[in-house]
Amino acid sequence: MLRIYGDIQSGNCYKVKLLCLLLDIQHEWVHMDIVAGDTRNELFLQKNPNAKVPVISLDSGRNLWESNAILNYLAEGSPLLPQDPLQRATILQWQFFEQYSHEPYIAVARYINKYLGLPAERADEYHAKQAGGHKALAVMEQHLAICPYFVGEAMTIADISLYAYTRVAHEGGFDLSAYPGINRWFARIEAQPKFQSMQQLLIADGGY
Amino acid sequence: MLRIYGDIQSGNCYKVKLLCLLLDIQHEWVHMDIVAGDTRNELFLQKNPNAKVPVISLDSGRNLWESNAILNYLAEGSPLLPQDPLQRATILQWQFFEQYSHEPYIAVARYINKYLGLPAERADEYHAKQAGGHKALAVMEQHLAICPYFVGEAMTIADISLYAYTRVAHEGGFDLSAYPGINRWFARIEAQPKFQSMQQLLIADGGY
Ligand SMILES: N[C@@H](CCC(=O)N[C@@H](CS)C(=O)NCC(=O)O)C(=O)O
Ligand SMILES: N[C@@H](CCC(=O)N[C@@H](CS)C(=O)NCC(=O)O)C(=O)O
Repeated sequence: MLRIYGDIQSGNCYKVKLLCLLLDIQHEWVHMDIVAGDTRNELFLQKNPNAKVPVISLDSGRNLWESNAILNYLAEGSPLLPQDPLQRATILQWQFFEQYSHEPYIAVARYINKYLGLPAERADEYHAKQAGGHKALAVMEQHLAICPYFVGEAMTIADISLYAYTRVAHEGGFDLSAYPGINRWFARIEAQPKFQSMQQLLIADGGY
Repeated sequence: MLRIYGDIQSGNCYKVKLLCLLLDIQHEWVHMDIVAGDTRNELFLQKNPNAKVPVISLDSGRNLWESNAILNYLAEGSPLLPQDPLQRATILQWQFFEQYSHEPYIAVARYINKYLGLPAERADEYHAKQAGGHKALAVMEQHLAICPYFVGEAMTIADISLYAYTRVAHEGGFDLSAYPGINRWFARIEAQPKFQSMQQLLIADGGY
């Protein structure tokens, strides 16, 4: 069976879980405690030498890391990853935007605030992240003011990639009330059959 | 004809140019002067609301941005992007690694050093980038100590993505002499028919 190594409170890991829920992909979830050093032990480094979750292990023994690469692999053949070449490239465009212009601001601000409790020595960094995060949110809002989803007329893995950390951006100090397009898009995603939020998953199972 | 907006001294733009050279893709190159504000004018923002190069414009008028998404689009059907699903996902894995764990250290250190002349107020940031850059180089070296290329037995767009900024990493203060696998891989890439280095392109045509 597909094995997923991750921590559901990490948006990068939640992306993979959400995809599996929406597509009914059977899997075993192996909880990784990052703070306790689970990503730094020898066995895990053989799976991902870059020492990060999520990682998936296939029945063949092959491993794949990087959340967005995993989404592309697991969604192949499903409606969440259409066949049209330009649509597929545009999905990648938004996923690279997420990793380069969004996650390093929004996820990192959330981490400093929620997990580290905004310690004084990282307050400057936290505040510096706000402008970059709002810049990414503004790019998203401009798109969602006109379009229902990031690519085409239906949900794709581009939406999953951007949803994960945007939905918990308030935990990084980002007030989303000025982004009505983003809020309407949240509701569209959350209305998908089999959708579960990060919070619901955390409550349902202590094993994450 | 395919139009490419970029600055050849930017590794992200050079990636796209190198792919076009290797695959003989005809294109018009539109030089963008980032410092002069070319990425911030109204017309350009309609192409990429995230205000970055490279961007490609297709004959249909559609635009695509994010260097690695562009590589996936333009390489489709060529040997640089094989058909096997797990190989394709592994190419994406290395491309997301490049954007998340490599470029933000190596490209940014190079920018601060080479283009800004290492000003005192950014010296701390520059020095802080060194550890992250060497971590990424070590992950690459571990792979290249055993494998000729990043995915499979031949060059793919994963190699193009990682080559661009690694080849000029010394301009960001990274001494590559301790990475023999990376140096052997440089030679393999540079031996490809039609290969041209960033430096060769700059000398050949002032228009970049
Ligand atoms: N680009 C990676 C980022 C993954 C990442 O940063 N994972 C964090 C948790 S959110 C992690 O494993 N950190 C452990 C560490 O860096 O030591 C992806 O999208 O999968
Ligand atoms: N993730 C983007 C990064 C592109 C990028 O950072 N481009 C820089 C030049 S290397 C740029 O256009 N900077 C202009 C700006 O940020 O104002 C990609 O891979 O295409």
